[in-house]
Amino acid sequence: MPSKRLLQALAGKRTDRPPFWFMRQAGRYLPEYRQVRAQAGDFLALCFDPPKAAEITLQPLRRFGMDAAILFADILLIPDAMGCRLAFRDGEGPVLEPVRDLDAVRRLDDDGARVAARLAPVYDTVSRVRAALPAEAALIGFAGSPWTVATYMVEGGGGHDFARARRFAFGDPAAFAMLIDRLVAATIDYLDAQIRAGAEAVQLFDTWAGELSSAEFERWCIEPTRAITTALKHRHPAVPVIGFPRRAGANLLAYQARAGIDAIGLDAGVPLDWAATQLQPVSPIQGNLDPMLLAFGGAAMLEATQRILDRWGGRPFVFNLGHGITPDVPVSHVAALSERLRAGTTP
Amino acid sequence: MPSKRLLQALAGKRTDRPPFWFMRQAGRYLPEYRQVRAQAGDFLALCFDPPKAAEITLQPLRRFGMDAAILFADILLIPDAMGCRLAFRDGEGPVLEPVRDLDAVRRLDDDGARVAARLAPVYDTVSRVRAALPAEAALIGFAGSPWTVATYMVEGGGGHDFARARRFAFGDPAAFAMLIDRLVAATIDYLDAQIRAGAEAVQLFDTWAGELSSAEFERWCIEPTRAITTALKHRHPAVPVIGFPRRAGANLLAYQARAGIDAIGLDAGVPLDWAATQLQPVSPIQGNLDPMLLAFGGAAMLEATQRILDRWGGRPFVFNLGHGITPDVPVSHVAALSERLRAGTTP
Repeated sequence: MPSKRLLQALAGKRTDRPPFWFMRQAGRYLPEYRQVRAQAGDFLALCFDPPKAAEITLQPLRRFGMDAAILFADILLIPDAMGCRLAFRDGEGPVLEPVRDLDAVRRLDDDGARVAARLAPVYDTVSRVRAALPAEAALIGFAGSPWTVATYMVEGGGGHDFARARRFAFGDPAAFAMLIDRLVAATIDYLDAQIRAGAEAVQLFDTWAGELSSAEFERWCIEPTRAITTALKHRHPAVPVIGFPRRAGANLLAYQARAGIDAIGLDAGVPLDWAATQLQPVSPIQGNLDPMLLAFGGAAMLEATQRILDRWGGRPFVFNLGHGITPDVPVSHVAALSERLRAGTTP
Repeated sequence: MPSKRLLQALAGKRTDRPPFWFMRQAGRYLPEYRQVRAQAGDFLALCFDPPKAAEITLQPLRRFGMDAAILFADILLIPDAMGCRLAFRDGEGPVLEPVRDLDAVRRLDDDGARVAARLAPVYDTVSRVRAALPAEAALIGFAGSPWTVATYMVEGGGGHDFARARRFAFGDPAAFAMLIDRLVAATIDYLDAQIRAGAEAVQLFDTWAGELSSAEFERWCIEPTRAITTALKHRHPAVPVIGFPRRAGANLLAYQARAGIDAIGLDAGVPLDWAATQLQPVSPIQGNLDPMLLAFGGAAMLEATQRILDRWGGRPFVFNLGHGITPDVPVSHVAALSERLRAGTTP
């Protein structure tokens, strides 16, 4: 029986109160983050700088006392390590060398040792965070899901033409499957190494799962996720995997049934009653406060929080947002929400 | 008992075969559309030119024999008629005067007679189409749903920052409610007039319903839709209303239960089994072939079509795409799909 609240909830146990953490809790809304960020060369350098990345990972816990830290890193570190050179340009988001045909897929470096060497600073960050973590907090590692990472690789950046990846998949399914398979293999190694370095749970972010038709969702979201969870469970049976297929709608049911995850992350569009009756009896759920309520704060934020606690607090549940914290969120709102959550379901 | 196949299905009756039509079936993929379009001054002028708009509405039926024509118009004609001057710039999409505060909402013209006069050419188009329609085909009128139309008004165009409309709604709920209420009133008048001019069914397009959290979905999607359907049903109890809250996910259940619609349109992300067991027993459904399969054509398109027919063909159902036809779709693919659909569920 794990003693940390987050791990209890993810193991399907009742907890004294629901554990909480926030997606992108280590980020630009925090002045101490911006200070460290200003000292670093660029965002990518920051991800590969273990002392700074560890510091950033721990910052929100000092202020707000979350039940978990989530590794400070980026879902595009894997393609970068596979040879798609990645850069972050201010105000533009990520830019990377596009992968749009079989030749480009074949050029990806799939030498596990070389890829691991490039990602070694991330594992160093994990070790440092784990060593410095408050006793009651858990450390969550993460990766992007293959489909979501592939959308950026095909696009060559963070543009929003997801149709490009879908056209690749329809036009040359074998080449796209090879891309996904290579991402599956690299993601297994990446999460395995994070766990060996000290991560106590891992989350797969499938930010663009909602762009897929239901047939594609089975093929490009559920199947690769199951391949990853199967391999991880073989090596680390006790380490929970949280899957977050954003905007998957009713496909959440199939994902929960077949992706092999231990808990499921829910975006703000998922109705509370439906999740309580259809999903929560099957596995622990995590979510789903609208991040915009955190930006506005006040009574609206606290009332919506209470509705979530009332509806989901009786069964294993991890409080979180429905998506990441936005840079415009006032620190005082995060403080007020955290204080409310530390008080439990019925303060 | 209506004799047209589409109206039978929308009334919940079994049909000899599922009726079909395609969203954006009158559009750029058709050479005869591009020819008429080239003669017109701009897109907006085309929408307000009854002979040309009627011709465009009828074009796809001549080639493909769909069971329904859908009025050629645009969801932004209502804001244009309310005084938000609209323009379509090539390659940029729509541009209109932004509505971002209470003053701008108050400046909207809510004089029903003036708005109706500006929209009169649309009603003329409806009459012309109805008079020229093949006997077995039905005419569908349409409007955008208030939430989706509001996103364009707040943005001032077709940009993809839906957060702007949501911030308006959170920051000044009374002003945003006034905007939605004015759109509800204008949409009721607009659809009422389309029906009086000859539309036999109407569809509400809520393209951006999936951008809303579940609480917002109740307030800004379901409630305004119910206000519209209630008013329309009072005036035209026998005219079916199809609601299409795109990417609504599990919120489709609440929408179907409370929005007052007769049939529900499903995007390509909705799983076939889930819709068959959860939605179709409650009301007729419409959808949901992935438009990208129409672009690729061939066996993949026909196999996916067969899966839909197999799963949904036994109950009242209207075959359609999950979203509009894209301009790159070859005419031959639409012909092959139409031929398949005219053959019924088991050719």
